[in-house]
Amino acid sequence: MTDDLAILQNYINRCSNWGRWGPDDQLGTVNLITAEKVRDAAALVKVSKTISLTMPYDAHGPQNGYLGRTNPHLYQLASGPGYLVGEQYALETPALTELRKSSGQPTLGFYDDVLVMPTQSGTQWDAPCHFFWHGQMYNGHSAADAGTAGSRTNGVQTYTGKILTRGVFVDLAAHRGVDTLEPGYAITTDDLVEYLAAKNLQIRPGDALIIRTGFMAAWRGNWGDYAGGPSAGLSLHTAPWLRDKDIAAIATDTWGIEVLPNEIDCFQPLHVVSLVHTGLAFGEMFDLDALSDDSKTDGIYEFMFSASPLPVTGASGSPVSALAIK
Amino acid sequence: MTDDLAILQNYINRCSNWGRWGPDDQLGTVNLITAEKVRDAAALVKVSKTISLTMPYDAHGPQNGYLGRTNPHLYQLASGPGYLVGEQYALETPALTELRKSSGQPTLGFYDDVLVMPTQSGTQWDAPCHFFWHGQMYNGHSAADAGTAGSRTNGVQTYTGKILTRGVFVDLAAHRGVDTLEPGYAITTDDLVEYLAAKNLQIRPGDALIIRTGFMAAWRGNWGDYAGGPSAGLSLHTAPWLRDKDIAAIATDTWGIEVLPNEIDCFQPLHVVSLVHTGLAFGEMFDLDALSDDSKTDGIYEFMFSASPLPVTGASGSPVSALAIK
Amino acid sequence: MTDDLAILQNYINRCSNWGRWGPDDQLGTVNLITAEKVRDAAALVKVSKTISLTMPYDAHGPQNGYLGRTNPHLYQLASGPGYLVGEQYALETPALTELRKSSGQPTLGFYDDVLVMPTQSGTQWDAPCHFFWHGQMYNGHSAADAGTAGSRTNGVQTYTGKILTRGVFVDLAAHRGVDTLEPGYAITTDDLVEYLAAKNLQIRPGDALIIRTGFMAAWRGNWGDYAGGPSAGLSLHTAPWLRDKDIAAIATDTWGIEVLPNEIDCFQPLHVVSLVHTGLAFGEMFDLDALSDDSKTDGIYEFMFSASPLPVTGASGSPVSALAIK
Amino acid sequence: MTDDLAILQNYINRCSNWGRWGPDDQLGTVNLITAEKVRDAAALVKVSKTISLTMPYDAHGPQNGYLGRTNPHLYQLASGPGYLVGEQYALETPALTELRKSSGQPTLGFYDDVLVMPTQSGTQWDAPCHFFWHGQMYNGHSAADAGTAGSRTNGVQTYTGKILTRGVFVDLAAHRGVDTLEPGYAITTDDLVEYLAAKNLQIRPGDALIIRTGFMAAWRGNWGDYAGGPSAGLSLHTAPWLRDKDIAAIATDTWGIEVLPNEIDCFQPLHVVSLVHTGLAFGEMFDLDALSDDSKTDGIYEFMFSASPLPVTGASGSPVSALAIK
Repeated sequence: MTDDLAILQNYINRCSNWGRWGPDDQLGTVNLITAEKVRDAAALVKVSKTISLTMPYDAHGPQNGYLGRTNPHLYQLASGPGYLVGEQYALETPALTELRKSSGQPTLGFYDDVLVMPTQSGTQWDAPCHFFWHGQMYNGHSAADAGTAGSRTNGVQTYTGKILTRGVFVDLAAHRGVDTLEPGYAITTDDLVEYLAAKNLQIRPGDALIIRTGFMAAWRGNWGDYAGGPSAGLSLHTAPWLRDKDIAAIATDTWGIEVLPNEIDCFQPLHVVSLVHTGLAFGEMFDLDALSDDSKTDGIYEFMFSASPLPVTGASGSPVSALAIK
Repeated sequence: MTDDLAILQNYINRCSNWGRWGPDDQLGTVNLITAEKVRDAAALVKVSKTISLTMPYDAHGPQNGYLGRTNPHLYQLASGPGYLVGEQYALETPALTELRKSSGQPTLGFYDDVLVMPTQSGTQWDAPCHFFWHGQMYNGHSAADAGTAGSRTNGVQTYTGKILTRGVFVDLAAHRGVDTLEPGYAITTDDLVEYLAAKNLQIRPGDALIIRTGFMAAWRGNWGDYAGGPSAGLSLHTAPWLRDKDIAAIATDTWGIEVLPNEIDCFQPLHVVSLVHTGLAFGEMFDLDALSDDSKTDGIYEFMFSASPLPVTGASGSPVSALAIK
Repeated sequence: MTDDLAILQNYINRCSNWGRWGPDDQLGTVNLITAEKVRDAAALVKVSKTISLTMPYDAHGPQNGYLGRTNPHLYQLASGPGYLVGEQYALETPALTELRKSSGQPTLGFYDDVLVMPTQSGTQWDAPCHFFWHGQMYNGHSAADAGTAGSRTNGVQTYTGKILTRGVFVDLAAHRGVDTLEPGYAITTDDLVEYLAAKNLQIRPGDALIIRTGFMAAWRGNWGDYAGGPSAGLSLHTAPWLRDKDIAAIATDTWGIEVLPNEIDCFQPLHVVSLVHTGLAFGEMFDLDALSDDSKTDGIYEFMFSASPLPVTGASGSPVSALAIK
Repeated sequence: MTDDLAILQNYINRCSNWGRWGPDDQLGTVNLITAEKVRDAAALVKVSKTISLTMPYDAHGPQNGYLGRTNPHLYQLASGPGYLVGEQYALETPALTELRKSSGQPTLGFYDDVLVMPTQSGTQWDAPCHFFWHGQMYNGHSAADAGTAGSRTNGVQTYTGKILTRGVFVDLAAHRGVDTLEPGYAITTDDLVEYLAAKNLQIRPGDALIIRTGFMAAWRGNWGDYAGGPSAGLSLHTAPWLRDKDIAAIATDTWGIEVLPNEIDCFQPLHVVSLVHTGLAFGEMFDLDALSDDSKTDGIYEFMFSASPLPVTGASGSPVSALAIK
């Protein structure tokens, strides 16, 4: 084994939560979001603001074909223009037909559509089934489960109704006074600890850590290699701290949470350690710019974080309408 | 004009909110969810429970082809079994390849997928662009806007980050002691008023009204004509009460909120009055059975209702992970 | 091993073409369509008729959800009604804009769409990668090849440009004077031999055998369990004859070529023997009714058969515009 | 009206076939493919070669997002790797289960998939409903017909079974001794006449003209702006010649048949004249390189052209497995 993989294996051993919540568990650190966390989160709603942390899902998103992913497409099953030229007369009752003929106006109609989207194409939670190591996913469930029509275990629906907790906002870009951290910048444990001290914030078990690098703001609309290219992000070496602090979920404004290029000779090693072994919920491509602007104004960096994914049975991830509620 | 359409026109005139929030408004009654509503909602979090109100999104859903809608399908971009047989070697770094060869085990891999779903195929909010009357949608926006690739106005993304308010649960089926109200049963204003009085609940402007008929419980898994067939639902004649109470959103466990067959010679007349003219947010196919069970235990019928839809640009509706937080 | 599987294994041994055209072959019996077959086929064009053997690809097709297959759906990227209400002004050059404004008429526009279809949803060729036995497909290629994004071997594109040969029409339904053979009727070698003798037709190596049961005519428009349900079809016991006659391709008007329910305790055993081991091209859901009507008139049962599938890289099958050219 | 549009209008008047085959016609010049043309085409099959003129349909195609079009994607409904890890046990009969357990080998399995493709994403015929001028398509059918779920008139299925005729190959790139004509090069009537004379080829009514610019060969695999960018192609001024020669169909190895940038102040004016008004069948992105190589060897430039599109009901175009049969 190379030195790099020895480091990786050491972190895996150090940070694993496999078995901690039983042999069948599919929730990982989301188990740390207890009833008390819900109450504590609600208590943080003080100034009555709801801020969306989700980017638009549409054809103008950041996907560039990397890993076969496209941006979301919306196709029409029934359209307004079609209604205007007569496509929907079959919906009419006799009274409506008579009204249309007497008035010369269309009567009733509707618009309807179909969404086609990779589950990992925009703001989204990774499911525990999203990553494998040595043939297994979180808690030892077999990679064989993640087959045709959705994974039999560790699907994203296990998170539904469960990700509502205290959110702590780590706006590193604003803190540093930069538009964006540089591509390749590895956020360290020291960076996090220093920031939290500066803001006088305590991390508590079950919290969600929301980290802003400024990367989405810098690439927005001219995405280039935002998806999959060099990026600021968490260092692999934060894995023990994330595990020891019992953080329930982490979300960033980058494509893949961790720094790119990767720090060791392994693709996405923090996914291997923290997603697969710690069972930490990973939120990617969160849109944190409105929250950043707002926090500069009110100085509030903790809030109720409501970010339950859709129960898409067996999916590798899910789009989510994430909210910071202050 | 027939008597039926005279009734309809009368309700349209009586219940319209067009212009109330300005000529460009695309939010309708969701405007009624003020900062105070958010604070009031948070104050309802007392016993620390989070209950999902969303049904699974998968191929076993209620769609039967009506209006061209299918159930959600999940297709794989990368699979666990494929990883196990060697499809993902391209992800390997040199160190990983060496490890695989020396250990005889697969190393790193991932599972990834694409979701294809009609936006109205499961638990969902109708967008204000979903319905037309006389060539217009809510607030006079033109039906012509709702064309290729999504509606230019009144798309569901206008609701994102905005539907978080006090929820009031009207569990009519449980109140009547039945598994489900009968198909064709029209829920009247008197029914609602009687229920609220019995539970000692006050309706306040900006509330979300969550109504359970028992219909989803009765049809679940053997859906038949759940989508589009005869169903219990709100009477057209509740429209003035919904308008006068300034309800922000209504959600039911049925396919289309209103009673079917329709009460007058018009398809979905409550949609015409309340969705198009009142601008009321319509939530359909909400899964209220877990909430019903829980309410029987704790006797709590008001809660924080967090149900922000995905910002699918220009969509006629959106799946939503809706939560009752008590 | 049961008696049934002993029979199956015996046929596999008896009928295999693995290795016959080399260890890397992916064409199977389509190799039998030599240059001479093309010339002979062309020589059959005598009365100058072209008859389509393909059913419409649309939402009214025979699929009922069996094996996860749906009917084809067509979604719009640009529409005529949208054009009429102004969606396509961006296509206009300055001269066109001026013309539109001066004339009050729309100028240029277009209609564009996206097809979503299971490759096995209508008239189609099975690819050699469509079926497996003991982990292998035709010619020993590994089932592991048939993974994400298409099969690395034996994909349907190997047939493209190759299926053009003499077609021999076996209209059993017409021959028997029935609208359709009964569900469960197993077409035997004797049936085929008797028919060919009656029509004075010789089978020659490289021919395509086109067999009509009447099943599509009987189920059309009211499809029910046409896909996957009881059906007339070829008996498993025809496998040696098909192999010995060196037939290149077989096509029927049924869902799955072979009789259903299956004759032995194995799902689709003729697929196992003839598709996997003989490497015989299987054409399913061919629409043979117009050809039947025409043949009754002109008495011609052999023709040029042009039925090259689309080169959909790695697909399990392909829709095809099949023609009988007399 | 500008001079450019006066030219366009003049060509429209000069080249229109509206009404020529009756007021309801949806076939246009494909009507010119008479029974005699089929016989003549068959008589051209002399050396027994079948050459595919269709490019692969897969994710590596030429689409770049222009006009919302993507390359084809193939998604799996059942996979080989999934079969190998046990996903398909439900297909087993009792005998197969027993065999699997006793042998330790998988038994029966299958691979199945879904194709998602814009109908205009690769080698394809434009349907007569694909283009509009002044609110109408070919033969005066209304653009309003081309709405949700497919066009009510002029859909591509009208061509099915009808495009089989004499093909004449105009390999301009080879004739000029260049790899490719330059982007922006407008092929003139003189170019065509000179080529045909040099090859001693006569054009006859009902022929298909297959024109190779070399553009696909030059861009293949590194497509860039092949779709929609500058390209060699037919000059608008060939429209009268195409009309007078009664050509039934034209196909090129370019994205859009006509030269880009366009020669007058109008987008795709040859489409307006020849597709909309002459009713000429337009074939785009035909892969003519193998045919070019072959023709250099055998010196044969006329052949049976079998290129019937799929009957995709109401589609704006269709992929096609086109063949040159010599």
